[in-house]
Amino acid sequence: MIRILVVNGPNLNMLGVREPGVYGTVTLEGIEAMLHEQAVAAGAELECFQSNHEGALIDRIHAAFGGVDGLILNPGALTHYSYALRDAISSVSIPTVEVHLSNIHKREAFRHVSVTAAVAIGQIAGFGAASYTLGLQALLDHLKANQSA
Amino acid sequence: MIRILVVNGPNLNMLGVREPGVYGTVTLEGIEAMLHEQAVAAGAELECFQSNHEGALIDRIHAAFGGVDGLILNPGALTHYSYALRDAISSVSIPTVEVHLSNIHKREAFRHVSVTAAVAIGQIAGFGAASYTLGLQALLDHLKANQSA
Amino acid sequence: MIRILVVNGPNLNMLGVREPGVYGTVTLEGIEAMLHEQAVAAGAELECFQSNHEGALIDRIHAAFGGVDGLILNPGALTHYSYALRDAISSVSIPTVEVHLSNIHKREAFRHVSVTAAVAIGQIAGFGAASYTLGLQALLDHLKANQSA
Amino acid sequence: MIRILVVNGPNLNMLGVREPGVYGTVTLEGIEAMLHEQAVAAGAELECFQSNHEGALIDRIHAAFGGVDGLILNPGALTHYSYALRDAISSVSIPTVEVHLSNIHKREAFRHVSVTAAVAIGQIAGFGAASYTLGLQALLDHLKANQSA
Amino acid sequence: MIRILVVNGPNLNMLGVREPGVYGTVTLEGIEAMLHEQAVAAGAELECFQSNHEGALIDRIHAAFGGVDGLILNPGALTHYSYALRDAISSVSIPTVEVHLSNIHKREAFRHVSVTAAVAIGQIAGFGAASYTLGLQALLDHLKANQSA
Amino acid sequence: MIRILVVNGPNLNMLGVREPGVYGTVTLEGIEAMLHEQAVAAGAELECFQSNHEGALIDRIHAAFGGVDGLILNPGALTHYSYALRDAISSVSIPTVEVHLSNIHKREAFRHVSVTAAVAIGQIAGFGAASYTLGLQALLDHLKANQSA
Amino acid sequence: MIRILVVNGPNLNMLGVREPGVYGTVTLEGIEAMLHEQAVAAGAELECFQSNHEGALIDRIHAAFGGVDGLILNPGALTHYSYALRDAISSVSIPTVEVHLSNIHKREAFRHVSVTAAVAIGQIAGFGAASYTLGLQALLDHLKANQSA
Amino acid sequence: MIRILVVNGPNLNMLGVREPGVYGTVTLEGIEAMLHEQAVAAGAELECFQSNHEGALIDRIHAAFGGVDGLILNPGALTHYSYALRDAISSVSIPTVEVHLSNIHKREAFRHVSVTAAVAIGQIAGFGAASYTLGLQALLDHLKANQSA
Amino acid sequence: MIRILVVNGPNLNMLGVREPGVYGTVTLEGIEAMLHEQAVAAGAELECFQSNHEGALIDRIHAAFGGVDGLILNPGALTHYSYALRDAISSVSIPTVEVHLSNIHKREAFRHVSVTAAVAIGQIAGFGAASYTLGLQALLDHLKANQSA
Amino acid sequence: MIRILVVNGPNLNMLGVREPGVYGTVTLEGIEAMLHEQAVAAGAELECFQSNHEGALIDRIHAAFGGVDGLILNPGALTHYSYALRDAISSVSIPTVEVHLSNIHKREAFRHVSVTAAVAIGQIAGFGAASYTLGLQALLDHLKANQSA
Amino acid sequence: MIRILVVNGPNLNMLGVREPGVYGTVTLEGIEAMLHEQAVAAGAELECFQSNHEGALIDRIHAAFGGVDGLILNPGALTHYSYALRDAISSVSIPTVEVHLSNIHKREAFRHVSVTAAVAIGQIAGFGAASYTLGLQALLDHLKANQSA
Amino acid sequence: MIRILVVNGPNLNMLGVREPGVYGTVTLEGIEAMLHEQAVAAGAELECFQSNHEGALIDRIHAAFGGVDGLILNPGALTHYSYALRDAISSVSIPTVEVHLSNIHKREAFRHVSVTAAVAIGQIAGFGAASYTLGLQALLDHLKANQSA
Repeated sequence: MIRILVVNGPNLNMLGVREPGVYGTVTLEGIEAMLHEQAVAAGAELECFQSNHEGALIDRIHAAFGGVDGLILNPGALTHYSYALRDAISSVSIPTVEVHLSNIHKREAFRHVSVTAAVAIGQIAGFGAASYTLGLQALLDHLKANQSA
Repeated sequence: MIRILVVNGPNLNMLGVREPGVYGTVTLEGIEAMLHEQAVAAGAELECFQSNHEGALIDRIHAAFGGVDGLILNPGALTHYSYALRDAISSVSIPTVEVHLSNIHKREAFRHVSVTAAVAIGQIAGFGAASYTLGLQALLDHLKANQSA
Repeated sequence: MIRILVVNGPNLNMLGVREPGVYGTVTLEGIEAMLHEQAVAAGAELECFQSNHEGALIDRIHAAFGGVDGLILNPGALTHYSYALRDAISSVSIPTVEVHLSNIHKREAFRHVSVTAAVAIGQIAGFGAASYTLGLQALLDHLKANQSA
Repeated sequence: MIRILVVNGPNLNMLGVREPGVYGTVTLEGIEAMLHEQAVAAGAELECFQSNHEGALIDRIHAAFGGVDGLILNPGALTHYSYALRDAISSVSIPTVEVHLSNIHKREAFRHVSVTAAVAIGQIAGFGAASYTLGLQALLDHLKANQSA
Repeated sequence: MIRILVVNGPNLNMLGVREPGVYGTVTLEGIEAMLHEQAVAAGAELECFQSNHEGALIDRIHAAFGGVDGLILNPGALTHYSYALRDAISSVSIPTVEVHLSNIHKREAFRHVSVTAAVAIGQIAGFGAASYTLGLQALLDHLKANQSA
Repeated sequence: MIRILVVNGPNLNMLGVREPGVYGTVTLEGIEAMLHEQAVAAGAELECFQSNHEGALIDRIHAAFGGVDGLILNPGALTHYSYALRDAISSVSIPTVEVHLSNIHKREAFRHVSVTAAVAIGQIAGFGAASYTLGLQALLDHLKANQSA
Repeated sequence: MIRILVVNGPNLNMLGVREPGVYGTVTLEGIEAMLHEQAVAAGAELECFQSNHEGALIDRIHAAFGGVDGLILNPGALTHYSYALRDAISSVSIPTVEVHLSNIHKREAFRHVSVTAAVAIGQIAGFGAASYTLGLQALLDHLKANQSA
Repeated sequence: MIRILVVNGPNLNMLGVREPGVYGTVTLEGIEAMLHEQAVAAGAELECFQSNHEGALIDRIHAAFGGVDGLILNPGALTHYSYALRDAISSVSIPTVEVHLSNIHKREAFRHVSVTAAVAIGQIAGFGAASYTLGLQALLDHLKANQSA
Repeated sequence: MIRILVVNGPNLNMLGVREPGVYGTVTLEGIEAMLHEQAVAAGAELECFQSNHEGALIDRIHAAFGGVDGLILNPGALTHYSYALRDAISSVSIPTVEVHLSNIHKREAFRHVSVTAAVAIGQIAGFGAASYTLGLQALLDHLKANQSA
Repeated sequence: MIRILVVNGPNLNMLGVREPGVYGTVTLEGIEAMLHEQAVAAGAELECFQSNHEGALIDRIHAAFGGVDGLILNPGALTHYSYALRDAISSVSIPTVEVHLSNIHKREAFRHVSVTAAVAIGQIAGFGAASYTLGLQALLDHLKANQSA
Repeated sequence: MIRILVVNGPNLNMLGVREPGVYGTVTLEGIEAMLHEQAVAAGAELECFQSNHEGALIDRIHAAFGGVDGLILNPGALTHYSYALRDAISSVSIPTVEVHLSNIHKREAFRHVSVTAAVAIGQIAGFGAASYTLGLQALLDHLKANQSA
Repeated sequence: MIRILVVNGPNLNMLGVREPGVYGTVTLEGIEAMLHEQAVAAGAELECFQSNHEGALIDRIHAAFGGVDGLILNPGALTHYSYALRDAISSVSIPTVEVHLSNIHKREAFRHVSVTAAVAIGQIAGFGAASYTLGLQALLDHLKANQSA
């Protein structure tokens, strides 16, 4: 059975509060519930984790080593400077899909560059909550394709 | 009935030939067939267009004005310098999803920046042919959500 | 009799459709008609050409060699990266006035630099359709001044 | 009654120890006591928080949502790279005054830029402990002006 | 009756003396006379001002507030660094056309950027004295169009 | 008795006229009156000076040498390029507080850097007219602290 | 029998017309005739293609796949920005020699960088028409060496 | 008796797991044991600390103030952006040797710059576990030399 | 008889007051007296001018046109940004020697570049008052050499 | 009789030893022998010089003044920083062809720029030993063409 | 028996004379004697070489090919620009440790980058003479580890 | 008796040959003779040295330590990259005047920056041979002023 971990970084717990003009009114709990349902339907296990602490995110990713098959990661603003988070993903070698609610390519210039995407399978950005469900689907398909291989 | 146009830019006709280490062995025809099937299943119409000419891509996007509800766009290497293609998307105001087969964020530095993504809904990169099917799903969901609104 | 060629680049055929907040509602046909009238009044011949293809623009400029006395050029977004268009103007040595509908100096940073203006007589930007009529007037005066010299 | 939160970032607990040539000998406790006194005199409530953890600072700012009217923030060295802290301030929309003990504009080049000031009302830098008391006064006046409006 | 102010910046009083290879032999007085004639013909009032002092240029622009309908501005070399002049134009909100005798886009690199054009209607560069007459025509047309609106 | 000079640079005489959306409707006279009152209350003398001329600002600062104990300086847009103004402050060694009405850290990129702040005690930006009163308070406290030392 | 394709990009059809001070008076037909003669003497087949359209150049390179053993390529100004042309060469994996008539390293700064040379065997620049004949010789020697290996 | 603190930053707990091609198979526990032995042999005390939390690293360094004579620090990826960690070292003024397992000067460009090395005695990089033992030796010698001085 | 004009820019009137650690205690009057004496000894006329106003410096240089054979210029901090002063020198074509009291090449980075030196004969920097006397000698020799030619 | 000098810079004496994966196994002696043979066949004289000393290379180029008609130069890594070598070539005005064994345009970024090519006739890079023979041929043709002119 | 070569670049012969505030009073002879002793104790041979000539350093490194097992290299200021020295190390493939007396990471910005470290095993900087003894120890351990492997 | 050393770098031996349009026809011997005469007249000893070898220049400067009171240095093109030469000057602490025949501030951009001037007393550029005689005069005056102090 495929085991998935969903990791959300700083400020994503504030979804629905934070800049609704940019992100919409959906909450993180809402997104996590959708993902659970989607995982169950696909016969997979899914666990969720959110922290505003870079260190806690790294700890959680390390703890996933050996126990998780794939990672959905929204690093929040850490996307743009946390080389430590990047190294954490490299250190566990778990296939990772990076997701963003907003289209980071049309916001402030500092948000156009991701230091973490280079160690992920790919990146999905701009579709609101759907970035997560598309990301989970992409991850599950990737894992199944490699499993059968 | 939702009408979708899939536009592929330079060199994507060479899929299966071109750098298979990077892109895999699937052909563009194979991708287009998958997308047709997916569109039909979703009750949508889908047409495909590929050209190695920036101008032909712009002409096709203009022609879509009034006749197409959503655009799947893989601009190929034009992603990184074609401001004319960017303006074409703006000029027709058709909701657009940008897709890339490879994870452009881990390739050469010049591929990390997209001049077209800023006028799209969002970008999906790194999942091979699945970038397209995820993109189509995202686009259809986006159009239905806005339709019902 | 002075012969003038008016060359418009990518997306200018969409005038009236494209971002009317930026460019106004006038059409390219409307602008071309005004220029014809202005040329006739000045005793000059005027022909118009528009293409979304960089290559077609270059072909047309080459074809003008020996048959055209002056060029009105709006390269659209090619202004900012088409060194090939720049070389085309150099190759035929036809006096050229670069025009822009919008004030490119107050839009996105990438539009502040013109790679083609360096081989033109001058540049007129920001006056909507009037950028063209001012440009034609400037070109005709320039040609007459040099003719009489 | 106006409720104020004072948030100090990394290393500010070491005030009086750390580079006294740059910051003077006053301690953080001394500054917090002064601010309490100033708040009481102005009929306001004031709470203080210091952490060396970016995540803890973000958590505390989130917790302030709905319960705090204004924020005094000295992000320490996080000023120069913590986009996550910047997003935290945006997410709660609490009016914020950024303060610095030293004049960051005359120190190392990397200290000349603040990534957090762009989401604050304003910035006060260079007056030692007085940067805080001036900041509190500015914040109280700002809140009263908007309250009465 | 439309009232126009023509403002020339540093070194333009030296026209006819200064680098004739670049600017030709026409004098500023000659240009101002042409513009007077053109204004009279168009039923407008026109006043001229030249100074080598950034401050005097700003003072004159301020004095125009309420008494002038449009501005022709050649900031000379201040074009490339005078943010104070830029703010002066913003402060009076008088429609302004920026003009340059030479094609600044083909001279030294520092002349390719205008810090003042971003607050003007548009820019005309490269046509010698005709840059002024084209600029006046553009300004008068702009003012009449807005007047009738 | 402490003697204070308040120096305002280009365009600040236009306060109340200039971009009220950014700066509010208060006038410079209003600010100067407030500062006078505040100085008198603190037992200090205060004189005000405004000019749109960089040179006049430098002259006035030089004239203050020996006759003024502290300087409140709002260099306007000169903040961002006037190294001459910076040297003027250095040349007289009068303690200086730099103030800005708006939060320069959230406006255009060119306003994020101050070339004058490096020779001031500190900088206060973003509080409208209150930037001045806070600045005066900071300056008086600084002078008294150093006086008694 | 070795089959060679010679591909010339934008404006090279204007050879002999265009800036003769830089490129000399030889025509493209003249160069192509020389290359034919040289190929025949070496027992090779040689075909030539020129277009001002980036897309047509890419189409022709794709068409060469499987039917051509080596490529002589002068991309003209596309050398400096056409990542699409670069990808076209990669996609067909045909050994390519990049040639330039002029010494691009001593012209304008934008001509010092080649985005296409990185996927070629090597580059020859500065020898006028001889850049082509040297390039053909280099290519034939390279192909023979690899053939015999 | 000399007291040494060894501080390891993010991801170093994963040694032996993480990218063994780059770092080898030694574990952090193995390195700490070696350092203990080396310290005992030199008549020094040695304590070790690892955390993936920037804040915890800063807290630990603060706690060392007054109780530790020298610091061995491998900041992991924080090396390249944590100005807060840099300030922590400054705030306690404990002599520090920065060590890296890999030769950061030959890895990705972002790893070539250290923001923390500027406040250390020196840096040792590229010798695997030996970077630590060399660093400890350098630190002990440095402390003894200064002690005897 | 050779006529020399000595022009000093912003803050040079404060010599002897301003940062004596950098410039020494000599006054501008002292320097001007030395230069007078030197000129008389060489059979030349010499006039001196100082202003803190960029515009006044430009006016004075214009006034020198036709009446002055050579210029000694210390632009003060205007050296680093006044393109208007640069154009003033070009406009009168008077041979100019740029002088600086301090060695600008070893001070702050912004002082390493001179925008005015490019239109001077040469630059002398770092010798205190002697920079002026050396400059005058160089200028007189240059003028005599060209006179006799 | 045409006299040619072949100059090789640092590390080229190590050919056959140095990074054979990049440069192949041919030795410098082998290349020099080939060039001798080629020169003799063309009725020219040819001398060779190699040094790892920038100064010795410059001395040898100076010595060639008056005695050599053309130069084949491989500056090795000096290509990328030796402005002194560049000036040496300028100082003797001997027609020079720059050659490189490897395709410097596809190696490390610092190798993409040549500071010496700007004073050469042209550059040939990427063909191994054949870069030299092509270069000699190009040089001889150039010299004969100019001789007969 | 392991054979070590110690190579010192420009100005290191002046140790004890040169900027003692930065480097201390130890001489190069003193350092070389220490290293000899250390090598003998480890059963290794050690030879020393110093030159102020880049070319002589390259010659000596070439001469070491086949006769030396490891290199201690302090390139002095050549560290920051000598790509030729870098290539010399690559050409002989001798394991190399780069050492610096001072902490180059806290000196002028141009000293923060090493162009030679990328081809070394690692770098040790900041420990004065001890940088050499640590470097020798690291090199001997590295060679023994690889020997036994 | 004051002892002066004149050091000339690469290519200055070619004076009179090299780019006479830039440097004039005077020879280095001529300049050295003038300087000898000037030194004798001032009661000083003067020795001259020229080399095209960076290392030989450094050796000569080292040899001057203790035996020379002042240095006239024209580093030629080494001015722009030889940090080793810069360190040589620092290492001997001999007062140095940097001179250049041409005005480096108006030539190619790479010549605008001097890495050696920062360790000199000052720089004189643009006066041809007179740069040397002015430099010697400046140096002698500097040495006498410091001698008498």
